[in-house]
Amino acid sequence: MITRLSELFLRTLREDPADAEVPSHRLLVRAGYVRRAAPGVYTWLPLGLRTLRKIETIVREEMDAMGAQELLFPALLPREPYEATNRWTEYGDDLFRLKDRKGADMLLGPTHEEMFTTAVKNMFSSYKDFPVTLYQIQTKYRDEARPRAGILRGREFVMKDSYSFDMTDEGLDESYAKHRAAYQRIFDRVGIRYEICKATSGAMGGSASEEFLAYSDNGEDTFVVSTAGGFAANVEAVITPAPDPLPIEGRPEAEVRDTPGAATIEALVEWANEQGVLVDAHAATAADTLKCMVIKVDDPREEDGPRLAAVLIPGDRELDVKRLEASLEPATFELAGEEDFASHDFLVKGYVGPRSFNAHELPVYADPRVVEGTAWIAGADEPERHVVGLIAGRDFTVDRFVEAAEIREGDPAPHGNGTLTRARGIELGHIFQLGRKYTEAMDVQILDEGGKRAVPTMGSYGIGVSRMMAVVAEQRHDDKGLIWPVEIAPYQVHVAVANKDAAALEAGERIVTEFSNAGLEVLFDDRPKVSPGVKFKDAELLGMPFIVILGRSFADGIVELRIRGGETLEVPAGEVVAKVRELVNS
Amino acid sequence: MITRLSELFLRTLREDPADAEVPSHRLLVRAGYVRRAAPGVYTWLPLGLRTLRKIETIVREEMDAMGAQELLFPALLPREPYEATNRWTEYGDDLFRLKDRKGADMLLGPTHEEMFTTAVKNMFSSYKDFPVTLYQIQTKYRDEARPRAGILRGREFVMKDSYSFDMTDEGLDESYAKHRAAYQRIFDRVGIRYEICKATSGAMGGSASEEFLAYSDNGEDTFVVSTAGGFAANVEAVITPAPDPLPIEGRPEAEVRDTPGAATIEALVEWANEQGVLVDAHAATAADTLKCMVIKVDDPREEDGPRLAAVLIPGDRELDVKRLEASLEPATFELAGEEDFASHDFLVKGYVGPRSFNAHELPVYADPRVVEGTAWIAGADEPERHVVGLIAGRDFTVDRFVEAAEIREGDPAPHGNGTLTRARGIELGHIFQLGRKYTEAMDVQILDEGGKRAVPTMGSYGIGVSRMMAVVAEQRHDDKGLIWPVEIAPYQVHVAVANKDAAALEAGERIVTEFSNAGLEVLFDDRPKVSPGVKFKDAELLGMPFIVILGRSFADGIVELRIRGGETLEVPAGEVVAKVRELVNS
Repeated sequence: MITRLSELFLRTLREDPADAEVPSHRLLVRAGYVRRAAPGVYTWLPLGLRTLRKIETIVREEMDAMGAQELLFPALLPREPYEATNRWTEYGDDLFRLKDRKGADMLLGPTHEEMFTTAVKNMFSSYKDFPVTLYQIQTKYRDEARPRAGILRGREFVMKDSYSFDMTDEGLDESYAKHRAAYQRIFDRVGIRYEICKATSGAMGGSASEEFLAYSDNGEDTFVVSTAGGFAANVEAVITPAPDPLPIEGRPEAEVRDTPGAATIEALVEWANEQGVLVDAHAATAADTLKCMVIKVDDPREEDGPRLAAVLIPGDRELDVKRLEASLEPATFELAGEEDFASHDFLVKGYVGPRSFNAHELPVYADPRVVEGTAWIAGADEPERHVVGLIAGRDFTVDRFVEAAEIREGDPAPHGNGTLTRARGIELGHIFQLGRKYTEAMDVQILDEGGKRAVPTMGSYGIGVSRMMAVVAEQRHDDKGLIWPVEIAPYQVHVAVANKDAAALEAGERIVTEFSNAGLEVLFDDRPKVSPGVKFKDAELLGMPFIVILGRSFADGIVELRIRGGETLEVPAGEVVAKVRELVNS
Repeated sequence: MITRLSELFLRTLREDPADAEVPSHRLLVRAGYVRRAAPGVYTWLPLGLRTLRKIETIVREEMDAMGAQELLFPALLPREPYEATNRWTEYGDDLFRLKDRKGADMLLGPTHEEMFTTAVKNMFSSYKDFPVTLYQIQTKYRDEARPRAGILRGREFVMKDSYSFDMTDEGLDESYAKHRAAYQRIFDRVGIRYEICKATSGAMGGSASEEFLAYSDNGEDTFVVSTAGGFAANVEAVITPAPDPLPIEGRPEAEVRDTPGAATIEALVEWANEQGVLVDAHAATAADTLKCMVIKVDDPREEDGPRLAAVLIPGDRELDVKRLEASLEPATFELAGEEDFASHDFLVKGYVGPRSFNAHELPVYADPRVVEGTAWIAGADEPERHVVGLIAGRDFTVDRFVEAAEIREGDPAPHGNGTLTRARGIELGHIFQLGRKYTEAMDVQILDEGGKRAVPTMGSYGIGVSRMMAVVAEQRHDDKGLIWPVEIAPYQVHVAVANKDAAALEAGERIVTEFSNAGLEVLFDDRPKVSPGVKFKDAELLGMPFIVILGRSFADGIVELRIRGGETLEVPAGEVVAKVRELVNS
C-alpha cells in the first residue's frame, strides 16, 4: 500500500500553533495529524485517522479476544434513562444538553452506564445468560471547562467503554481480572510506558479500582511507585500506614504554655527548641506539632448543610487538597474563611487545637499518624498559647482517620517494601468494580439458579482511545518530530527521493513497489520540486519508524535507512526491503 | 471465527414491534440487529454492528481504490462556518442546535460542505495540489420531522460523504465519472437492485445530478425507467419532450361559447362532444382542454413577495406537485385559495383561462406540450363560458415552460426509445456537480498555472451507509426473516445442532472449527435447551446465507445445508465445509 506525498491531503507547519502547550498537541498539529475545528474539537486528517484506526483495531482485537461483545449505542440520547439515575442533573455543566424540534430533552453521551444496563435488563432474564461483557468504541462528548492539550483532553473524543455483568462477586473478580490483563496487552502493544495504579473509586462508588497511568511530565495525575516494586497508586489512593498505638498510662500531663508570636509551625518549633521543650523525651521537631486546619464540610447525605470540622496532620506536612477531597467523597469541603473565624469565638486563629472541636461536638478528622497515645504540641485555643504533651486518645479524640497529608518522595511504601517515588501521569484507562449501583437504580432483576430474583453486579472499564494517540506522542518524540512505534504508525516506512534525477525517482518507484509487495505500508515522498532538506525535515516531523533515503550514495547503489529516533544505516538498495521487514518483525 | 448463540448478546422477538411499518424495520428489530433508543435513534446490537461495519468496509475500499482520501470531521461543530453559507438559518428545524457551557452556539453536523471546503482552503494553495477528493464515513444528525422506518430514515445515521475539488470543469466531469463508477461497484458488491436516475440538483445548485435509487415498494421516491433501457430518472427530473410547433397562419379564430355547468374537464369534454366541437378537425378529448391552475409563487430572489401565476397543463393530466416544486425551485408555491379568487375579479372559478393572466401581466407557466400553434379549449374568464380553438402563441403567450404534469406509465421516454414504467425507490446515494457555490461563499482562492487566483469547482457525493443495511433488508427477506448476501452477512454460516445428544453437539463443534479454519465466520447455535423448532425459526429470522443443520440424518453422516432463500441440500458431514466454501466463492 503506497501513499504519495505529492497527492496526500497534508500540509506540515514549520511554526507551533499558538494555543499548543504540550509536545503532543504541538507536533500532531504541525505534522498534519489533527486540526482544530472548535475549542476541544478536532478534525482527524488522513495520517491521524490512520493511527487512530490502528489503535482502535488493537483495542477491538484484545476486547474480542477476552470474550467481550461489541455493540454501538447512539451518541444522541434521550433524557429519561439519565433521569432515572439522577445523572441528568448530577453531571452539571460537563453534559452537552439539547432539545429536539419537539422540545424533548436530549444529551450527547458522556458515558453510557444507563444504556448498557438498560440493554441487559431488556434482553436478558436468566442467570444462564450471564456473565456477559459488552463494549463499544464510540465518539463521546463532555463539555470540559478547560479543554486543553489538543486531543489529550477534548470535548469530542473516542473512548472504549465496557461493562461486565455477573451474578456473583467472584464472577465480577474474574471479569475484572480479564479486563486488567486485556488492558495490559493493549497498552503493551501500543508501546506505552505506564503503571497500574491503585485508585479511589470516587463518585462512581464500587470497590476495587485501578487506573492505568502513562508516564508523562505533562500529566494531570500524580502517582507514586515503590522503589522496591509491587506497589503503585494514584496519590489520592495511598493509604498512610498507621503506627502502633502507644500506652497512655503514666504519661506526663499536658501543659499549656505561653508561646508569644508562635502562630506558625516554624515559629513554634523555634520556641520549643529555645525553651528546651521535649516531646516523648526528644527535642521537638515540626513532626511533633499538630496542624489543626478548620474546614467546612458539605455532605449530600446530611440535611443540615455545611458544618465545621477539624483536620489534623503532622506539622511537617502540607495539606493535599485532592487527597482530602477523595477521602471525604461524596462530601465536599472548603477551608474556613475569615467570616467563620469571626462568627465562632472558640476559633482562635493560629492557635486552634482539637480540644475545642471535641468540646463543641464538631468532627475531628486526622491523619493516621495521629494514633492513640501519640504526643503533640498543638494550639491551646487561646491567643499566643499552645499545649505541650497533648496525648491523642486522652486529651482529644479523633472521630475519623482521613488521608489529608501530602505524600512525599521517600515516604515508606504502604506495603512495607521500599520507599515511594512520585511521578506524573496521564490516565489511559480505568477499571473498577462498580457493583450494583446501576443495576439497582434501573431495577435489573434476573432469575438465579434457585429461581429467585437477583441483581447482577457490574464492572466498569474505560480506555481513552483518541487520547492514547496523544499519550504515545508525549512519550515518543524528539525536537524534530514524532517517533511512532511500528504497531500504530500511519505507515511503517517513509521513502524519500532526495536526488532529483529521473533515475533516482524511478528507483524510488521500484523500491516503494517492493515494500508494498512485501506487505508494508509506505509513504512515498515523490514531490519533484521539494528540496532534500525539506523532505528530511518532513520525514522527521511525520515520524514513521523507518525512513529510507535515496540520496548521494544512491549512485553507488546505497540507500540510507534512518531508524527514527535511533541509528542510521547504509544499506545496499537491493537489500533495504528485506532489512526493514526484518526490523518491523523484530 | 466462531460466535456461540449460547453467549451472544441477542434476544430474538416473535412479535413485530408496534411502531414498525416496513419489513426492514420489523425484521431488523425482531432479529436483534438494532434496537430503538429514542425516536429515530438506534442502538447497533452485535449482529447489526457486524453488518454495518462490513458495508462501511466495502464503501471504504471502493473510495480508496478511486483515489479518495479519508479523514474525519467532528460531528459537534461550531456555528461560524455554517453562518458564512447561511445554512445555520436555512437548515431550519432539521438542524440539531445546542449551546456549550460558555453559551457558544454549536450544531450536530447534518452535512459537512463547509468543513471540507474550509479544510481545502486552509491546506491547499496551488493548482499543483489539485485535483483532490476527500471523504469521511461518519455519524450524522438530522432532526427529521417524521423519523420513520427504523434505520431507513433516522435522526442519527451513518453516511459516507465526499467532495471532489478540481481546477477545471473537465476535471469535475472526470471526478464525477469516477464516483459514479465507484458507487456502481459499491452497490453491486452489496447486492442491491438499483437504478441510476437523473435527478434535479435542487436547492444545492449545480449541474449534473444523479440519484442511486434502490427498488422498493416502500420507497419515498418515484422514478421512471424506459422499457427500451437507456433512461432512468426521478420523476421530478423527467423532461417532457416538446412537440414541434404548428403553423399559426390560416387557423380558425378562437370562439367563445356558452358552456353551462361545465366547470370540470369531464363536463367540458361531454359538452364539446354533444355540441360536435372539433379541435384541429378531430373530436375533442380531455387532452384538447387546458387546465389552468392558479398558484401563488414566492421567489426568494424577488422582493415583492408572493404573486399570482397560471400553470397550464393538458386537461387529461393531473398536476404533480413535487414536479412543479422542483421546476420552480428555489421559488415555492401554493395553490390559490378562496380568498385569492375573492380578491381578484378576473379569476372566475372553474372558467379561468390564460388570457386574463397575459392581460394582467402575470406569469403564465405551461407544460411543454402547450407549444406554439397548439389549439385548446380553455376557460374564457367569464362564468359558464369557454373558448374553443384558442391557439398558443397567437391568443395567449407562455412565459416559461415548466414540468408540472404527472408522468404516466406508458408515456414516451424522453430519449425517444420505449415508454416509461414507474417504480418506487429508496435513495441510496446522490452524486452531483456542485460547482463553485461553496468555494465562492468561503472564498477559496487557488493559484492557477498562470499564477492567477482561481476558484476550484466541487462535486458532492453521498451514500447512506446505515440506510443501505435497511435497503438490503427491504429487498431481501421473506415471511420468515432476513436473507443476507454473503458480502455483508454478519456471519456466512449458521450451524445449528438440532439433535440433542452429546455426539451431535461434539460433531457440531468439529464442523464449526473446520468452518473457522477455512476462513469462514460461523454463528453456532449450541444452545443446549432450545428446541429444534426454535433453532430453525431463529436461523431463518437471522438470515445467514448458509444454514447447516445437524438433524435426524446426522446419524447417517448427512447434514442439511439450507441456502437461505433457496434450496436445501443433503450433504455428507465431511463435505459440507468444502461445499459452503465453494458456494461462498461463487
